[in-house]
Amino acid sequence: MRADVPLPKAYLLLNHGPVTLVSSASGARRNVMAASWAMPLDFNPPKVAVVIDRNTLTRELVDASREFVLNVPPLALAEAVVGVGNESGRELDKWAHFGLGTLPATRVAAPLVAGCIAWLECRVLDERPTEQRHDLFLAEVVAASADDRVFRDGRWRFDDETLRSLHYVAGGQFFTTGPAHAPKRDG
Amino acid sequence: MRADVPLPKAYLLLNHGPVTLVSSASGARRNVMAASWAMPLDFNPPKVAVVIDRNTLTRELVDASREFVLNVPPLALAEAVVGVGNESGRELDKWAHFGLGTLPATRVAAPLVAGCIAWLECRVLDERPTEQRHDLFLAEVVAASADDRVFRDGRWRFDDETLRSLHYVAGGQFFTTGPAHAPKRDG
Repeated sequence: MRADVPLPKAYLLLNHGPVTLVSSASGARRNVMAASWAMPLDFNPPKVAVVIDRNTLTRELVDASREFVLNVPPLALAEAVVGVGNESGRELDKWAHFGLGTLPATRVAAPLVAGCIAWLECRVLDERPTEQRHDLFLAEVVAASADDRVFRDGRWRFDDETLRSLHYVAGGQFFTTGPAHAPKRDG
Repeated sequence: MRADVPLPKAYLLLNHGPVTLVSSASGARRNVMAASWAMPLDFNPPKVAVVIDRNTLTRELVDASREFVLNVPPLALAEAVVGVGNESGRELDKWAHFGLGTLPATRVAAPLVAGCIAWLECRVLDERPTEQRHDLFLAEVVAASADDRVFRDGRWRFDDETLRSLHYVAGGQFFTTGPAHAPKRDG
């Protein structure tokens, strides 16, 4: 079940470096693309940084709406993640083509990607020189939620392998998130 | 063995979202801190983005030198990673205290952290408003290298578990990088 994540815990959804899907909408148009280059930028209020190439439809929709959602896909969606990373939303409706469902967001117009394990609804900060020079968007997370089978009480629980998050390499290859370790602290 | 990584492949060292150690130096002073909030920003010339909090000694050294190294530590160094993340270089010499060796960098003055599996030598870009507002540093990668037992021919090879990269959660907890997957592409 999708459950709200308190905003000061939202950074935990991205802290371990998973690949993301960026969903966006403007008017009747919507799109979804893959982005590995996304990370937390601040704790509270939570902020994120994400690279959105200037040649993408997503960029056009984010420029127009100043909003997007970072969705964290699990292994079960890996094939769709590769697909939406390789195709352009200018050529086809990637949602329909890759069988991705949508869920309504709570604070932004862009839809959430169904079947993902975490969602960060974001409003873009006014840092246009950084966007224009580096394709880098800084944004505030205004709502966060997660699949409570996998993330609850502020902790990831990756018991089910098909629900593990992904770490993108290149050429259609991923690593899944591996076993947890808690080394002793050296005081 | 440490081997050069061609600059257009340098992004692969960070693409899967591993935790990093940031090493820095200015004059006779040097430091090392942990940073999960680091990611590629561009392919070629390769660039990175990393958050360096304004209250850290690392920030002082990077502000002065405009250089740093992103080191990718393996599981074998996990305890030291937690340690350097919890202590301040203003209180103790973290290199000595956590038993971290150094290797000379090729293009910057900051040392590399010995025992890491990849190294990105970086020169900070002139984006001071972004640094000052968001503690976010954008930098060009001027040299890259990796332990060729783990990364060679442009590919990670995580056969030895102790040499796997780490994905930081919080509270001294990590995930290691898990198994590789290559889903079929949907055309």
